[in-house]
Amino acid sequence: MTGTLYLVPNTLDLGTGDASAPPDIEDTLPMGALRVAAALPHWVAENAKTTRAFLKRVDQRVPLARPLQEIGIVELPRPPKGGAATASPALAPLLAPALAGQDMGLISEAGLPAVADPGALLVAAAHAAGLAVRPLSGPSSLLLALSASGLNGQSFAFVGYLPVEAAARSARLKELEALSRRQQQTQLMIETPYRNAALLSAMLAALAPATRVSVSVGLTLAGGWTRTLTVAQWRRDTPALPDRVPAVFCLLAS
Amino acid sequence: MTGTLYLVPNTLDLGTGDASAPPDIEDTLPMGALRVAAALPHWVAENAKTTRAFLKRVDQRVPLARPLQEIGIVELPRPPKGGAATASPALAPLLAPALAGQDMGLISEAGLPAVADPGALLVAAAHAAGLAVRPLSGPSSLLLALSASGLNGQSFAFVGYLPVEAAARSARLKELEALSRRQQQTQLMIETPYRNAALLSAMLAALAPATRVSVSVGLTLAGGWTRTLTVAQWRRDTPALPDRVPAVFCLLAS
Repeated sequence: MTGTLYLVPNTLDLGTGDASAPPDIEDTLPMGALRVAAALPHWVAENAKTTRAFLKRVDQRVPLARPLQEIGIVELPRPPKGGAATASPALAPLLAPALAGQDMGLISEAGLPAVADPGALLVAAAHAAGLAVRPLSGPSSLLLALSASGLNGQSFAFVGYLPVEAAARSARLKELEALSRRQQQTQLMIETPYRNAALLSAMLAALAPATRVSVSVGLTLAGGWTRTLTVAQWRRDTPALPDRVPAVFCLLAS
Repeated sequence: MTGTLYLVPNTLDLGTGDASAPPDIEDTLPMGALRVAAALPHWVAENAKTTRAFLKRVDQRVPLARPLQEIGIVELPRPPKGGAATASPALAPLLAPALAGQDMGLISEAGLPAVADPGALLVAAAHAAGLAVRPLSGPSSLLLALSASGLNGQSFAFVGYLPVEAAARSARLKELEALSRRQQQTQLMIETPYRNAALLSAMLAALAPATRVSVSVGLTLAGGWTRTLTVAQWRRDTPALPDRVPAVFCLLAS
């Protein structure tokens, strides 16, 4: 019998708030995920240190099955940026505990693992090895933003990061707008938080006045907000975006 | 002061299991969402009856702030199928309680409201009316399936339902496969449960042998599973898909 690879959701409060008094983990994660997380002996994570902090928060709600120092946490190697998700033989050793019959967890820095982060490579390796993969219920900032946008939720695409260079970014935005118009498909994108304001400026400069743009800042956090306006409306009243809080941007062309 | 439109997640167990003993709502929904849901005096829902059943389940964990019969539940009119999400003036009256200062909830039959369902029209109307919109943390079957697929989670699109007619469906699958190959973009789709097996057959007939297909059945449910294989591998061993359990299908062409 092999073990199961559980995909464990994380909260969305990374890097925000008071680290000594983080928001209640139960506010955003269901007990079902906390119970499984508390029992897992082995983890693969983007970051071992923040995973230990996560497990301490879990322990306050559901006591860990073993002391933290006896829980194995291995960091996922970062693939080349922008690389497509293909199973890599180098990842197979990370799955050794599951192949030996023990359950494992995969966790990312925020939200669902393997979405907008490199964890998909490990999941692909697990499928290739014939392991059971079980995702646990939890939030995705991308889908919360889409839900709150009021834009088309029946057809949408997440396109990741845009180019940083101004001309290439503008061209990419116009390309996404044309695609959105043709297919009535909402386009979602993210940016490194300190470039949030720059991305919104670029959108307002590149997109047509009637295109709707939605910005979600600090999803699930106190003070978070979502606003959906046309480009023309945003231009008349452009808010300052925080440079340390994650944001998700959506557009839908009419 | 106007009220807030809360987007309240639902479980993913709709139409499955023993209705007299449904799965514990806390397994899949966080306490934060249950606390807000228990306090809301007004709801807009896809279905009033199932929303009352949902509120009874909430009440077992967090007592409702008022008797169920005093909670207002209005059903969302269904837009023409496949229609794009645009704010409709006809929806504005549904927001009257929020405009008068009371908080409201929007809920769909499963997962996040306004994703793959008609709720986006109401959210758009809320933004147009200047109301605050707050999504509460909860699961999306689409993103759980993507997470569990091991396919590219850094670029993906949800395309909804495929045509039912065989030739049109096959053509659409080939179109999505070409798009996926060109952009290394995972394509997600859903189907009415009783056509799950027919969709998988159509995928295996239309797609290239090396294209990877992931099927997630019964996400978050006991007995649920996710399997990711190449088309060639699926053809050698095609499982019978249940015809009453929701499934999500993903493909990524190499």
